[in-house]
Amino acid sequence: MPAPREETPVRGPRNTWRPSPELGSQGTPRWDWVNWIKDIVVAVTSENMDTMMAIIQRYQHQRVTLVEAGATRHQSIFNGLKALAGDHPHSKLRTPTVVIIHDAVRPFVEEDVLVKVVTAAKDHGAAGAIRPLVSTVISPSADGYLDQSLDRSRHRASEMPQAFLFDVIYRAYCQCSEHDMEFGTECLHLALKYCQTKAKLVEGPPDLWKVTYRRDLYAMESIIKDKISQQICVVMNTKEDAGCIGFLQGLLKKELEVKGTSVTLCPNGRDLQKIFLGECCNFVCINVMNADFHQTTELLDGLRSRAPSFFYPVAVVSVHFLDSQNVSFSERMKALMEMKDFAKEVKNRNVFLYGVLISFTQDNLQQLQENIRQGAGIITSLIKNRSAELTGQLLVA
Amino acid sequence: MPAPREETPVRGPRNTWRPSPELGSQGTPRWDWVNWIKDIVVAVTSENMDTMMAIIQRYQHQRVTLVEAGATRHQSIFNGLKALAGDHPHSKLRTPTVVIIHDAVRPFVEEDVLVKVVTAAKDHGAAGAIRPLVSTVISPSADGYLDQSLDRSRHRASEMPQAFLFDVIYRAYCQCSEHDMEFGTECLHLALKYCQTKAKLVEGPPDLWKVTYRRDLYAMESIIKDKISQQICVVMNTKEDAGCIGFLQGLLKKELEVKGTSVTLCPNGRDLQKIFLGECCNFVCINVMNADFHQTTELLDGLRSRAPSFFYPVAVVSVHFLDSQNVSFSERMKALMEMKDFAKEVKNRNVFLYGVLISFTQDNLQQLQENIRQGAGIITSLIKNRSAELTGQLLVA
Repeated sequence: MPAPREETPVRGPRNTWRPSPELGSQGTPRWDWVNWIKDIVVAVTSENMDTMMAIIQRYQHQRVTLVEAGATRHQSIFNGLKALAGDHPHSKLRTPTVVIIHDAVRPFVEEDVLVKVVTAAKDHGAAGAIRPLVSTVISPSADGYLDQSLDRSRHRASEMPQAFLFDVIYRAYCQCSEHDMEFGTECLHLALKYCQTKAKLVEGPPDLWKVTYRRDLYAMESIIKDKISQQICVVMNTKEDAGCIGFLQGLLKKELEVKGTSVTLCPNGRDLQKIFLGECCNFVCINVMNADFHQTTELLDGLRSRAPSFFYPVAVVSVHFLDSQNVSFSERMKALMEMKDFAKEVKNRNVFLYGVLISFTQDNLQQLQENIRQGAGIITSLIKNRSAELTGQLLVA
Repeated sequence: MPAPREETPVRGPRNTWRPSPELGSQGTPRWDWVNWIKDIVVAVTSENMDTMMAIIQRYQHQRVTLVEAGATRHQSIFNGLKALAGDHPHSKLRTPTVVIIHDAVRPFVEEDVLVKVVTAAKDHGAAGAIRPLVSTVISPSADGYLDQSLDRSRHRASEMPQAFLFDVIYRAYCQCSEHDMEFGTECLHLALKYCQTKAKLVEGPPDLWKVTYRRDLYAMESIIKDKISQQICVVMNTKEDAGCIGFLQGLLKKELEVKGTSVTLCPNGRDLQKIFLGECCNFVCINVMNADFHQTTELLDGLRSRAPSFFYPVAVVSVHFLDSQNVSFSERMKALMEMKDFAKEVKNRNVFLYGVLISFTQDNLQQLQENIRQGAGIITSLIKNRSAELTGQLLVA
């Protein structure tokens, strides 16, 4: 239940996280998303209190206060409101003008819908996000027959977030009947019933859906994986961007967004710093004619200096172009196998390291193109699947 | 819109598919799911007609008839009913006693809910699956304010499948007003309005959800991957099931269901046949002290003789235990690299071949256990991710 600052909401940065020099002792990302929200009150059942406290500490959430959850939805919300009203013992929270009520099971809320409901709540006293109905709603009779079917176009699903003038929703909860408190599900209804406040309804995006069933967890996981797999940074030990390198980059660009390219990592780390300031979770490190992975090591060191551990797994793909005619294949293979130990070490910091070897034959251009194409497919697959079990593997194109 | 046989429904096999000797020239699986359904009528828009016909031919669906979709849901359903009523030119379909109406966007319907709605429709004239509401339903005023919020416990989402006595639903559609035909969404409502038939409502499982948004496609993909990745068949070239092999199998059993184990493939193929009769999509082929993959080749040949191509990708993991002290590592690696060409060939038949090498040192039991543990993790990850790009790779534990 985040309580926005009293000023008009200002759009904060869209970053979900970024490692920054302000990182604390744990080196974990600082959450500064929607910075116009002053306090966030979370209702937690007593058995989950310790877990929640550990999460808050690990990710250094500065704005979160915990209150004990009630037996019902409305009781939990009321407990949160009491904390903001100063009714809570030892509460250091200030009572806000507007309060947003949200569900933790709707994790993909975007800032713009928060701005919309807060703005509407200031003007109308209450506001909530709605969505079109996916299925027709019917009312069954007591014995399980169809009584009535509602016109789908005249009804909407009431979703979260909702926002209220604090006085409106707090007064509503203070007057709320026991029956409402126990069986009710709709905060907008309480504002209407007890404070005669007609909520303004705001069309929300589909992302507001409630993670309810196992399939929703699947969808959530895929959405997160998709989000963090879209952008890559390319680091190379050559300035050349034609030939093989150019061809490989072109293929990668078809599947992924190449966010930044750094030609060798500068000793002072400025290039790297520029890359790290983005929120890229994926690095493709291209080592031309080079079987050791000096370039990759430097990148991993750079990552270590920025953040000892990451919120999401960071994927690093070490790509090696190898002239299979001029180097002993098996020797090179053996050298690269050492990567396994290195991968094991960085895995502890949530960095997934993979190796890709692209065979290079000067005299067969068609085969080379085919190998690069295969290599690009492997790189994309590694980044998209982000398999912990495959770290340290050397894949061959 | 499947039309069940007139007899009382009998539970058919639960298999979604199985390759069987009755396979046609394409060798693709025969769908005999819910075999008490006699005819299936699908409404298809004209621009998708060719695609649908190709699918029917490829998978040899025997029971499917196509009709042209209308501009609205109800028009499409009516077109399907007309085909079953014999109003359709050249229709060879017989009019059924009971008809099921279903949405293609609810792909995970199980046989038991079909049985339930058909049984209820026989008794009551109409029946439909319902689910609890996930969000509260509200009715907005014309200017976008909350007018009324419905009591969530008194309402349900109307889902599919629904079933009807054919006469009831056909009469309802024949009498249906233009307004209903254009704006209506609920078949149960038509049965009530035009034939005074009160539908019996049946609680359905959560799997009936409507694939509507991008997130639903994600969920669907994960559910299918999960389903086909749960069971493995293990094929070995040794009878020994203690030691390394036993340890590996034990680890695999923690993550996957080991459905069958075959000790070497008999020349007459009986062992293999037994395995293929299940619906297993995953094979782990263990080659002890053997770097060539004779065992794996035989399995792949067997798979080819059963079905030249598969509906879902079949994953084959060729596992090699190699004593790293007694064999030249690089030689073995090189030999196994040949697997790549083989993998490329079988990929055309939708078989994904991967290799896993587990290093084996007689004198270091702890290291061996660790390698086997890693190998099991890699095998599980390969089967669960089913990446087309990683076929032909040799992963090293």
